[in-house]
Amino acid sequence: MTDADPPPFYAAHVFVCTNRRQDGHPRGCCAASGSEKLRDYMKARAKELKIPAIRVNSAGCLDRCEFGPAMVIYPEGVWYRPVSTEDVEEILQVHVIGGGRVARLMLTEQDVPPPKR
Amino acid sequence: MTDADPPPFYAAHVFVCTNRRQDGHPRGCCAASGSEKLRDYMKARAKELKIPAIRVNSAGCLDRCEFGPAMVIYPEGVWYRPVSTEDVEEILQVHVIGGGRVARLMLTEQDVPPPKR
Repeated sequence: MTDADPPPFYAAHVFVCTNRRQDGHPRGCCAASGSEKLRDYMKARAKELKIPAIRVNSAGCLDRCEFGPAMVIYPEGVWYRPVSTEDVEEILQVHVIGGGRVARLMLTEQDVPPPKR
Repeated sequence: MTDADPPPFYAAHVFVCTNRRQDGHPRGCCAASGSEKLRDYMKARAKELKIPAIRVNSAGCLDRCEFGPAMVIYPEGVWYRPVSTEDVEEILQVHVIGGGRVARLMLTEQDVPPPKR
């Protein structure tokens, strides 16, 4: 960022991969891992909890399919792999509201996709 | 960010709004403003230019419809309104590769959507 950049438009901008591949694709996909339900829950709960300046968006393939359902929270760029609505709730409460991290659900620099063929 | 966070997975993570509303919707939509073509161009050019660690994703409605086609580049959180492939090329060259800003295409804190009814 530069000093001249506008202030962040969203304090928490969440992108949930909702890419869907054909059944049996070797990389799988986040939609098949239930990401749409998790996105819906996160959007609804963010509204219920009246979290200010948050936006929860669907996104195309984030290319971490093997570690999905994948989501990333910007501007901090922290990636998560929630597998249940309870996981999403914890991410909202601990990370978005509390400013902490849900370490057990975070992707790390080791979670990289296999080389492209 | 905290010191314990993994390093950024993408150096430039671009989200292009490709939301499409029905024709005549008062807010319009980025797809109707040509965002899909701009996304395709950006993806193809990023590959041609061999820009490392960039990801160009489609996203659902970013809620800045009135100022679209809207895109945002994270982690810096800078928003742009490119209207042509030439504009996208300039954003790639000046912002992503050069680390600068294309001031004439940037959204500002004044570019806020009307209040929800």
